[in-house]
Amino acid sequence: MSLKPKKVSDSKSVMTEMIMPNDTNPMGNLMGGYLLRWMDIVSAICAGKHCEANVVTASVDHVSFQTPIKVGEIITLEATVTRAFRTSVEVFVEVFAADMKGQNPRRCNHAYFTFVGLDDSSAKPVEIPPVLPLTEIEQQRFESASRRREVRLILSGRMKPEDATEIKSLFGIPVPGKE
Amino acid sequence: MSLKPKKVSDSKSVMTEMIMPNDTNPMGNLMGGYLLRWMDIVSAICAGKHCEANVVTASVDHVSFQTPIKVGEIITLEATVTRAFRTSVEVFVEVFAADMKGQNPRRCNHAYFTFVGLDDSSAKPVEIPPVLPLTEIEQQRFESASRRREVRLILSGRMKPEDATEIKSLFGIPVPGKE
Amino acid sequence: MSLKPKKVSDSKSVMTEMIMPNDTNPMGNLMGGYLLRWMDIVSAICAGKHCEANVVTASVDHVSFQTPIKVGEIITLEATVTRAFRTSVEVFVEVFAADMKGQNPRRCNHAYFTFVGLDDSSAKPVEIPPVLPLTEIEQQRFESASRRREVRLILSGRMKPEDATEIKSLFGIPVPGKE
Amino acid sequence: MSLKPKKVSDSKSVMTEMIMPNDTNPMGNLMGGYLLRWMDIVSAICAGKHCEANVVTASVDHVSFQTPIKVGEIITLEATVTRAFRTSVEVFVEVFAADMKGQNPRRCNHAYFTFVGLDDSSAKPVEIPPVLPLTEIEQQRFESASRRREVRLILSGRMKPEDATEIKSLFGIPVPGKE
Amino acid sequence: MSLKPKKVSDSKSVMTEMIMPNDTNPMGNLMGGYLLRWMDIVSAICAGKHCEANVVTASVDHVSFQTPIKVGEIITLEATVTRAFRTSVEVFVEVFAADMKGQNPRRCNHAYFTFVGLDDSSAKPVEIPPVLPLTEIEQQRFESASRRREVRLILSGRMKPEDATEIKSLFGIPVPGKE
Amino acid sequence: MSLKPKKVSDSKSVMTEMIMPNDTNPMGNLMGGYLLRWMDIVSAICAGKHCEANVVTASVDHVSFQTPIKVGEIITLEATVTRAFRTSVEVFVEVFAADMKGQNPRRCNHAYFTFVGLDDSSAKPVEIPPVLPLTEIEQQRFESASRRREVRLILSGRMKPEDATEIKSLFGIPVPGKE
Repeated sequence: MSLKPKKVSDSKSVMTEMIMPNDTNPMGNLMGGYLLRWMDIVSAICAGKHCEANVVTASVDHVSFQTPIKVGEIITLEATVTRAFRTSVEVFVEVFAADMKGQNPRRCNHAYFTFVGLDDSSAKPVEIPPVLPLTEIEQQRFESASRRREVRLILSGRMKPEDATEIKSLFGIPVPGKE
Repeated sequence: MSLKPKKVSDSKSVMTEMIMPNDTNPMGNLMGGYLLRWMDIVSAICAGKHCEANVVTASVDHVSFQTPIKVGEIITLEATVTRAFRTSVEVFVEVFAADMKGQNPRRCNHAYFTFVGLDDSSAKPVEIPPVLPLTEIEQQRFESASRRREVRLILSGRMKPEDATEIKSLFGIPVPGKE
Repeated sequence: MSLKPKKVSDSKSVMTEMIMPNDTNPMGNLMGGYLLRWMDIVSAICAGKHCEANVVTASVDHVSFQTPIKVGEIITLEATVTRAFRTSVEVFVEVFAADMKGQNPRRCNHAYFTFVGLDDSSAKPVEIPPVLPLTEIEQQRFESASRRREVRLILSGRMKPEDATEIKSLFGIPVPGKE
Repeated sequence: MSLKPKKVSDSKSVMTEMIMPNDTNPMGNLMGGYLLRWMDIVSAICAGKHCEANVVTASVDHVSFQTPIKVGEIITLEATVTRAFRTSVEVFVEVFAADMKGQNPRRCNHAYFTFVGLDDSSAKPVEIPPVLPLTEIEQQRFESASRRREVRLILSGRMKPEDATEIKSLFGIPVPGKE
Repeated sequence: MSLKPKKVSDSKSVMTEMIMPNDTNPMGNLMGGYLLRWMDIVSAICAGKHCEANVVTASVDHVSFQTPIKVGEIITLEATVTRAFRTSVEVFVEVFAADMKGQNPRRCNHAYFTFVGLDDSSAKPVEIPPVLPLTEIEQQRFESASRRREVRLILSGRMKPEDATEIKSLFGIPVPGKE
Repeated sequence: MSLKPKKVSDSKSVMTEMIMPNDTNPMGNLMGGYLLRWMDIVSAICAGKHCEANVVTASVDHVSFQTPIKVGEIITLEATVTRAFRTSVEVFVEVFAADMKGQNPRRCNHAYFTFVGLDDSSAKPVEIPPVLPLTEIEQQRFESASRRREVRLILSGRMKPEDATEIKSLFGIPVPGKE
């Protein structure tokens, strides 16, 4: 891979939204699907900056919703790249909420999205620059990215569970050639 | 659990949408986040019918996007319950697309959402009626629901990987008390 | 007309929507115009499938609104073709509502829309396959379609009232050549 | 009826909109349903002014769409009351279009909507002030309103065709007690 | 300037909108930014009619918001051209509000927008017809337009304060060559 | 004023948006009014954080639009408080744009908004904490805020031009008691 590695901070993207009545269910809570749409947009912006290409969403990993967000509250979404694989890049996105006065601040959600960069004229996947992790947390997310990738390949039927060496070690199963 | 089991067909929900310019990226493809929002809404409607209660999204499992959907195309989303756990219910949602003329029909996506039913006055979780699977495919999804549930509990940090008996059997790891 | 007749069920289209705050008037009721927009979209999707062509709305017949629909309720719209005339097709659309829990289900509205199918390149009307009515209710709607068509032609000034043989019989007026 | 009659011009309402990409079908034409939504809103505003009450749409008469309106064009909708019946009022709405430069101006559509005024506290229908028609065209629409009302009552099953004295005279059928 | 002057009334544009829940802040008041968007659209429509060209917003002058507008209220925006400068035109827009019943009518806001007309093919500015002010108020706005223009040029850094002859006279500063 | 001063960085707010087809005019450029709406929202979020209160827009100063922004581009809005006056606070907002790939980055616009903080129960203005400017640019904006405030008071008719001591010095007019 000959592209020059890029820092995580170069493509970090931040989005702020105010929760409007139409984004909420009859109990006045932000609906999960609306949050997923914003998480996808800010992640796509982040991925586009890193890849310097148009990108399309390839997948989103498991997301859980444990903290209700109310109408009138302000949410902030922060997206950073974690690791690039030849033609795809993984983005980590976190969601924070607080009320209009900045009070009751809390971390609500996080998710991993993957994107594929596309060439403008051919619409074929382009090669993506490597991610250069600098901080400790960036390095942890870089490392764990291959394990998340194995899960995705298994879940989308493109890898057999027995070939998932990263996950096997997670469960303490001996993997040949890996001590 | 004393509630009367309900059939899958009783709460099946179907949504049809036309892809408008605003739902698409600059290349004219439906953005992943918009599709997730519709998948969440139709699943919530389905879960609400089964639970006979207001519901909130608890989680969405891994979703991959392999088939681009173009502006002007028609998508159909079909949501069915697969299995209820005491206060949550899993919904399977499939997405089909075709052009305005009904041509180029194809299956695009699927996902599993989980919902929690809430009591109107206390906003506390309510007990959910069991799902009665009748067809073969309904029974398969009912069976595999516990494995997906284990993955969710691990991913949200509420179960240790070594306790995931369902998943261990998937990888051929001997589970005590399960032959 | 040499095109092969098509069954009603081949193009039946179902749409489900949740009523959001923005769709309602200050009293929390769905506004008539928003319902008409959804009725038009699901009917257009149905007509497009039957015609296998892009379609444009030619008219909507009288619609009355007798049942208020509240914010947070779920509506289901079902559209079926009733009869094709050389370059137009009539679609019957029914609206059902229920609350989020599937309770208080009721039939709210119905309407007849007509569509014209257009050729992709010339944007000229295309010939439309005949509708093959099979059930009793499909046959009734097929029969009564010509009477509704006469009303439309009179109302849009393209037929003189005295030539409206179908309507005249409705009022018990003798029509020459029709016993 | 003791309420003071009000002039048509007192409640005339005008709405101008620019056709955005999301309002159009894949061929770039304004979709019929979107136009109906705007026609309903401007008519409701007009009816609300005349009734000095909150209003809900009771019905819309037959509307035909003969002139395509393109993305980027400007539409003007003009709504005026035609006649009040005890607790309902009929509104006439006309649609005009032109391009952004004011060129290619044309009349596109018209329709008759009826509204019921509701009391704020009881949500029961309120009595509506009579319409005072002044110009010749206002008087024509006032006169023909009772014929349109008979059609509505027949179509919604609240009047038998044989009792429709206004319509019978239209077809030249002798009506007892009306020379 | 050889273009034929056009009357103010020829391009006057009126827009009516109903304030929906999504347009308001958590206290149920129309948000300033939403009002600015509508003011911009109706002014652009007005400028487009006067210029007989596509227009883009060049600037908006100071706008203050002193009267809250509530959800469910009706606003009317009226836009008129005041004066044309070679390739730009100034539009005056006023906002009026009242409740759904036409009660509590009041003037809420006003602003001056400027637009540049663009040639369809070259996207270069086009020459704009002069405005012909007829009424007293039209003449006042025509006169004061050059003072507002000086303020704009200073604020956007294209004129030095000491060259602002119009403004200087406002403050009673002697301007050479102007008695 | 006894409230504790707060740093500018404590309430800085950043918003990122992707320009969708519906936000643009027929030439594919972001419409000025849509940009103003976003500028208002991010400024309100920033003001709310500083005031720790619900806020309403009191005014926006002159904004000019010199750089077209195209559909599919990404805009970033950054809002910071500049200075508080007893019950109002001024916010400076800047707009940056770049294409989806992060290329062609440029500064597009800036504006000054003012907000009033409101008490939750009484809806009356609340006292606002002073702004503590730390960097050189923060101090410059803090200083020039009183001059902008005089312009606003004159423009909204609440100050006579002859009392505008700050502006008079700008034009080199001697102001008594100010050397």
